[in-house]
Amino acid sequence: MPAASTFLQTMRTPAQNAELALLLEVAGTPKPGNVDRKRDLPDLRFEHFLAGAVGAQDGLRAAGRGDPVGSAFERSVEGMAEQRGGNTQFGALLLLTPLVRTAGDDEIEELTPEAAAATVAATTVEDAVDFYRAFDHVDVRAGDPPEDMEPLDVRRGSDAADAVRDRGLTLQELMAESSERDGVAREWTDGFEETFAVADRIADSDEPLPARAADAFLWLLARRPDTHVAKKHGASTARSVMVRAQEAREGGPDLVAAFSESLVESGINPGTTADVVAAALFVALERDGLEV
Amino acid sequence: MPAASTFLQTMRTPAQNAELALLLEVAGTPKPGNVDRKRDLPDLRFEHFLAGAVGAQDGLRAAGRGDPVGSAFERSVEGMAEQRGGNTQFGALLLLTPLVRTAGDDEIEELTPEAAAATVAATTVEDAVDFYRAFDHVDVRAGDPPEDMEPLDVRRGSDAADAVRDRGLTLQELMAESSERDGVAREWTDGFEETFAVADRIADSDEPLPARAADAFLWLLARRPDTHVAKKHGASTARSVMVRAQEAREGGPDLVAAFSESLVESGINPGTTADVVAAALFVALERDGLEV
Repeated sequence: MPAASTFLQTMRTPAQNAELALLLEVAGTPKPGNVDRKRDLPDLRFEHFLAGAVGAQDGLRAAGRGDPVGSAFERSVEGMAEQRGGNTQFGALLLLTPLVRTAGDDEIEELTPEAAAATVAATTVEDAVDFYRAFDHVDVRAGDPPEDMEPLDVRRGSDAADAVRDRGLTLQELMAESSERDGVAREWTDGFEETFAVADRIADSDEPLPARAADAFLWLLARRPDTHVAKKHGASTARSVMVRAQEAREGGPDLVAAFSESLVESGINPGTTADVVAAALFVALERDGLEV
Repeated sequence: MPAASTFLQTMRTPAQNAELALLLEVAGTPKPGNVDRKRDLPDLRFEHFLAGAVGAQDGLRAAGRGDPVGSAFERSVEGMAEQRGGNTQFGALLLLTPLVRTAGDDEIEELTPEAAAATVAATTVEDAVDFYRAFDHVDVRAGDPPEDMEPLDVRRGSDAADAVRDRGLTLQELMAESSERDGVAREWTDGFEETFAVADRIADSDEPLPARAADAFLWLLARRPDTHVAKKHGASTARSVMVRAQEAREGGPDLVAAFSESLVESGINPGTTADVVAAALFVALERDGLEV
């Protein structure tokens, strides 16, 4: 990747940059509603994210050396889940896995939306089966599927393997089915549009990286409803959180702090926004050669 | 290692546990004088430690698969140094490298002081040469050596290679030369006595791991003078810091916070104590199978 060889002074591999992105994401503060450097939630603490990032390492490395996206993702989730906090970085890893695979491919010149989209387009039915297997390792919030999709309920995990093969859906096609209600799936379908937009924002700043992560989080939260919030609390709550994020940004640090307290009290954690910020940090480290 | 297979529910390798130990160490707060979850220093910030831990990964993995201690250490330091904070975890890696190599050896049944001492005893002159090479990557505080040791000044880095070979000192013997004035070298010489004592303390608690790290830090700081402080500020300052740590522990959180502020204002960072705590966290994760 010419961009990397021009700018990067480090030997960090794409997998290592991805792990570092996960760590920088959780170090950013304030990140209203979520665990951050200054905030633990009752059963989800900072150290669970540290262990999740370290545990994801083998799967991320598999993606970097060109393993199929589905199996690399499943492996990263299995390792991530080896801590007591539960699902810390499932969505972030679902974004990072194809991005790391793209960045690790010697034949790809630069980490662009087009290159990432090509990785996604090359996914197979077996990638979809492995994606389902990942759900065996962790509880992920998922609503009831449409009636005809019942056999493909992700909560069935690896038990859905036969149904996935019968339908013959690739992982890309499966993601397209969810892209209207799931922000991570939408990134898969839209060429990682939000991820690259946030990466540009991060790369253009000269704050320390955790401060850029926090800024990017609030910026994105104010831009569109967080689909993790929508699934858990409904679409109107997700829209309200977006509007309040806009007001908090305009109001300054005190209003951001109050907004943050309010989200924590209501148990609202904008998880999809954090997922996209982690992926964007990876793009900024890998494509723009940002130094820590 | 029977202890590990009995207790550990995770697939984390020794190298991964070592990286996690580095992350948990810096997440512990309050850790008077040092960077922690709530404290950045002017030119040394939390994210430098995150990047240092990720960067050390390849060297730690080399140690885990049985590479010589010296070359694995040099590699871990090279990767650690790929951030703008400078020397974040040099001493911690010097403790972790032989411990990871010991834990990764299938023929060793348990991670004990004796097993670690045997790893140290097996080091060679080439390990010592590689240890010097590690100084090429980072500025480490070191005083003037005794006159007859001038050719072995660590600040010469790889330029000292010939002198090291001429003297024929193994890395263990080289550490023994510094054990009176350097707490990390003393651990090498004393069978990691402090490291294992702190690991026992960490394993016996049931607080979250970062809280155990902070408790262990203050406990150890109150037990003996920190040699990093002694090198930088003199022996009497190091003894005074020890006594004030004792008073702060007895006085409770407010006194600990005031002690912490005072150390930061004076530019006193007890680095050796942090190094030992990181190594102890590794022993607790690896030997006792502590879950995060």
